[in-house]
This record gives sequence, C-alpha cells and structure tokens, in this order.
Amino acid sequence: MPELRLNPVTRRWIVTGKRTVMPDITEEADLCPFCPGNERLTPKAILETRDERGAWTTRVFHDRAPIFQVEAQLNPRGEGMYDRMNTLGAHEVLVETPQHNVRMSSLSVEQLARVMEVCRDRILDLKQDRRFRYVSLYKVQRDATSPRLAHSHSHILASPVLPQIMQVELRWCQAYYEKKERCLFCDTIRQETEQDQRVVDQNQDFIALCPFASRSPYEVWILPLAHASSFEKDIRDPARLRSLAGFFKNCLARVENITPAFTIVVHTEPNTQARGWPKDSWLTIADDYHWHIEINPEIEGDRRVLGSEGFYFNPIPAEEAALVLRALEPGAEPAAGE
Amino acid sequence: MPELRLNPVTRRWIVTGKRTVMPDITEEADLCPFCPGNERLTPKAILETRDERGAWTTRVFHDRAPIFQVEAQLNPRGEGMYDRMNTLGAHEVLVETPQHNVRMSSLSVEQLARVMEVCRDRILDLKQDRRFRYVSLYKVQRDATSPRLAHSHSHILASPVLPQIMQVELRWCQAYYEKKERCLFCDTIRQETEQDQRVVDQNQDFIALCPFASRSPYEVWILPLAHASSFEKDIRDPARLRSLAGFFKNCLARVENITPAFTIVVHTEPNTQARGWPKDSWLTIADDYHWHIEINPEIEGDRRVLGSEGFYFNPIPAEEAALVLRALEPGAEPAAGE
Repeated sequence: MPELRLNPVTRRWIVTGKRTVMPDITEEADLCPFCPGNERLTPKAILETRDERGAWTTRVFHDRAPIFQVEAQLNPRGEGMYDRMNTLGAHEVLVETPQHNVRMSSLSVEQLARVMEVCRDRILDLKQDRRFRYVSLYKVQRDATSPRLAHSHSHILASPVLPQIMQVELRWCQAYYEKKERCLFCDTIRQETEQDQRVVDQNQDFIALCPFASRSPYEVWILPLAHASSFEKDIRDPARLRSLAGFFKNCLARVENITPAFTIVVHTEPNTQARGWPKDSWLTIADDYHWHIEINPEIEGDRRVLGSEGFYFNPIPAEEAALVLRALEPGAEPAAGE
Repeated sequence: MPELRLNPVTRRWIVTGKRTVMPDITEEADLCPFCPGNERLTPKAILETRDERGAWTTRVFHDRAPIFQVEAQLNPRGEGMYDRMNTLGAHEVLVETPQHNVRMSSLSVEQLARVMEVCRDRILDLKQDRRFRYVSLYKVQRDATSPRLAHSHSHILASPVLPQIMQVELRWCQAYYEKKERCLFCDTIRQETEQDQRVVDQNQDFIALCPFASRSPYEVWILPLAHASSFEKDIRDPARLRSLAGFFKNCLARVENITPAFTIVVHTEPNTQARGWPKDSWLTIADDYHWHIEINPEIEGDRRVLGSEGFYFNPIPAEEAALVLRALEPGAEPAAGE
C-alpha cells in the first residue's frame, strides 16, 4: 500500500509504494472501460448524471488503482528526521462524456456545464470530510495512445496534505496580502487588463491570459474577474456555471489549434474546515487566494533546464503567445455535440 | 534575446524568448560537433585539458545558443507587479571525453577525476564574477537519439538568480539549522548510516543513498560524509577528487544497470561573494548547507500526478531501490578506457 513521505530538504510530500488494484475489477485489453456498456470494467459509480432517456451523461467512480484511499487511517508517524502517513484520501475518475475519442473542447456547452457541476459537487462533498486538506481536480489530454486516454476524463484527488504548488502559491499570496491588503491575482488582472498585451479572451465574468512568466509556450490561465477564493463555491449559480463552461470551451478550442496535448489543473482554496490546521492559518484565505484554472500545453521537447527544478525555458514570450491565441477563432459549435 | 521573468505567485524565475544562435558557428547534419576534428563546429575553447601527446581530453566552450550570456547587462526592472532582468550569466558546455558514444560510467577513474577537476575550476572561476549568484552543473544522459546526446557532455550555468530548487533547499536547511544548530544533511547521513536501509554504497569519504522520499525509482544521492557546503572547494585535494571519481563511477554503473537515462545535478552553495545579497543572509550557509550530487533515473512513464507540481508518485520505495542497487556489482573496469 502506498504511503506519503516528506522530503525534509524540500518539504515536499511524495507518494511511494505499490498501488493496490481493486480485486473485483477486471480489465479487458483494447476495451475502453469508460464507454457505455463496459461499466463492469470500472468500480461502481459514486455519482452519475443521466439524460431524459435514462442513459448516463457523466460518471464518477473510484480509480481502479487509487493513489489516495478513503478506507485507510491517517496514522501520521515520525522516524527520527522523517515523517510519513498513510495515503488517506480519495481518488476518483470522472468520465466526461459517453462518447469515445472526443476532445473536451468538442463537448457542448451544456455538457461542459454538467461536467463542471459534477466537479463542483464532488469537491463540496469531499470537503465535508475534515481529514482532507485539499481536493485537486486535474486532467491530462493527449493524442490517443491508449483506450483510456482516448476517452475524455478527469481526476479528483482528496489528500491529507497540500500539493506542493498550493503550499507555494498560498505562501506568496498571503505574503502579498499582508503587505498590500489586496489579492495578488486581483492586482494581476487589473494590470493585465490595462496593459492588454497578454489577455487572450474575456467575457462579463472571466478572463483568460497568458501569464507573464509562462513556463511553457501558450500556457493559459482562466480567472474569475470578481474576487473568489473557491472554485466550487463560486460556480453555485447556474448562470455563472454556464458562463464559465462557454468561456472555457472557447479557450480550450484556441489552445487545441496549437496542440491537442495539455494538462488542466484547477487551483482552488484548501479545505478550510480541515482538522489540525493552526487555528488562525486560514483567516485570510478567502481574501488572499483567487481560484483559477491553468492550461499547460505540452509542446514537444522538454523545456526544463537543469533537471526538473532549475529554470524553465520558454522560447515564446507570453505576449507573442497571447497574440497568436487571440487571433485563433475558436470555431463554430462542432456538429457532434453530446 | 531571452530574459528572466519572475512569476509573482510562485516566486520562480523563468527564462523566456528566442535564444540567439552564435552567428559564426555552422552546424553540419549528422556530424557530431563534440568529436575531435570537428572543433570548428563549436565556439572556441574556454578551457582544454590535454594528454601527453597533445590531444585534448576534455573541452569547455560556450553553448552555441546560450540561455545565459556573459555579454549582457543585468538591467533589472519592474513593471507594475512584474519583475524582469536580462539573462546575464554564462552557459558553458563541457565535453567529457574525445570518444563518441561512450557512457559516463565507462570513462576511467582518471578521466572522471579530470572531468570533475574541470568542473571545479570552471565553477571557481565563474564565482569570481560577483554578478553571478549561482553556478549550476548538470548533465542529461539518454540513449543516443542525436549525435550531440551520444557524446558525453555536461552543462555549466552561471545565473544572476538562484534556481528554484536551491531557494527551497537553502530555506529549509536554514530553518533546520536555526532550530537544531546542526546540518540537516549531516543528521540525515547519521540516521541513514544507523538504519542502513537506504544506503547504496560508502567509502571512507562519501556515501550514496536512495533518499527517504525519492521522487523517482532508483533516485540516488551522493554526499560527502564530512560536512562541506561547497562542492568546488571540497574537492581541491587530488586524493579526495580521485576518491569521489571512483565512488561516482561505481554509483553510475549501478544506476546504468537499471536504466541508461538519467539526469545528474550537483547541488552546491550559492556564490557567497555575489553582490546584492542582504549582508547577513549567507552567514550560516557554510554551516547549514551540505553539497551533494543527485542522480535521477528516468524510468519510462511520467510519475508526476497532478501536473508538474502536485505529488510525485514513486512505485518503488527507497528501501527496495537501495536493496536492488546495492546488490548490483558495478562490474569490472571496461576495456575502453579514455
């Protein structure tokens, strides 16, 4: 069974050990476990949405070989200078469409709104568990190399520790807020809107931009214009949810004009109800953090100089990337809807 | 020309922009620029070592398309919330052997000692320039896919800012030292020696271990047993240099039994003579930092969960990896020496 271990020099948690594959789930080669009719190849659904004819439109279930598991005890323990704990948490898979081999940007706005609603509800539900400090939501899209990858899906990961990137972001957002009493992201949006060099798109609710210090060519962030720290609470209103779905679809389509391979990660506030945090540590989260979605295209060739944690090298500055993405018409609604 | 940009949310510097290719250097397809006889395909040597017959044994020259350049002015400038500066620094290539298609572990101990001596001397020389805050030394080894990659070489990178990993390591080493008045790495070595579960090899001067929270299977760190913060100062003594070369060769051979693809990064103290640091910020570096070499094998498949900065997932715990590496005999001195 995997466990969490803390690297004392970097304070980064890693997960190590063999993942347990659920014993009652078989796999059949070349058969997509995410397609309708093959539900026997996945654990049973935690949540399903259905159309008027009763067929499922989205499905959520536990990962077959989870990284984090609900069953385990946390059991944090020290061993001299080392810290470890069990991988208590949850690892769920969200199948975003019954259709095989459809890119996320080709889903209809209605379907994307449904997907986001499901994400929202799963995050809200998982955050009821006060042992989970964070719920991650991410997706890897590649040109189909395996049946699984060819079927559009996301991962939802509840963990008893923060992913490293969230530790870092929260730290610097807090430091900024302490100094300025303003949200770092709100100030970024203000400057980006004024300079108008890196903005890719904007509607009444959201803005998409190529971040000033983009790690990779055509990196895009989507942020709400009005300050909000929590993705899952911010899209409770159906109109706002739909606004995000349409905006997100357009952004994805722009990026897909460049490459079909990218990673999408939602950055949202940690579980402010979690047990064990120092009493005052979340006091300002609602003010100093700003949820957003990061789309990171994987253009061929490794852009990392000096191993994985030296410098990123990005040959295309954000302004050039924004200019290109801005000019790309997202295209008409594809015929193949849901 | 590339520039350095600071991401205000992560405080990470990235390099962005088109790299300038040196105009006077031509490239000839399928011809290895690192082979004897092809020196015209590289910038002229900064340093060369030669054997008794006058043929070069190692060569150092500027990278053809440098990430950091000595010529530029630093010119740090703000733009609202953003910070940027020129990529003032140096980017040198060290060709480790005249022989094409030889893996680093196949070099003789003498040749490896020569390579390390050259690294040492280049780092010491570059640190004379008080505008450079760090000198990175790293190597990427892959199964030959291009003539360049098939010819064993390293990169030496002088930068006006710290790579992110060094920021993080120095921060936590300092915090540890402030609390305990002991070096975090010295304590690690003490515990590892006692537990003897993750030690791969040891001689009178150095220890090799699989770090407790290894990011990837078979990750290996090589550390000096006696406390020393600076790689380049610690190997001034020829006997110690030779001890490291022999030990390093054995470690490499063990890892190569698993995979020929890995990254090697030397972690050493920053340039404590650099201008512009707060006066007291380096006071304890000599006490709280411990230089080491990190070897990171790239076993097929991406082990990063949740994008590049979420959690690493490593299916093989450090103890298992150490057991395997320990059992692998490094093998006899290969016939093809230097």
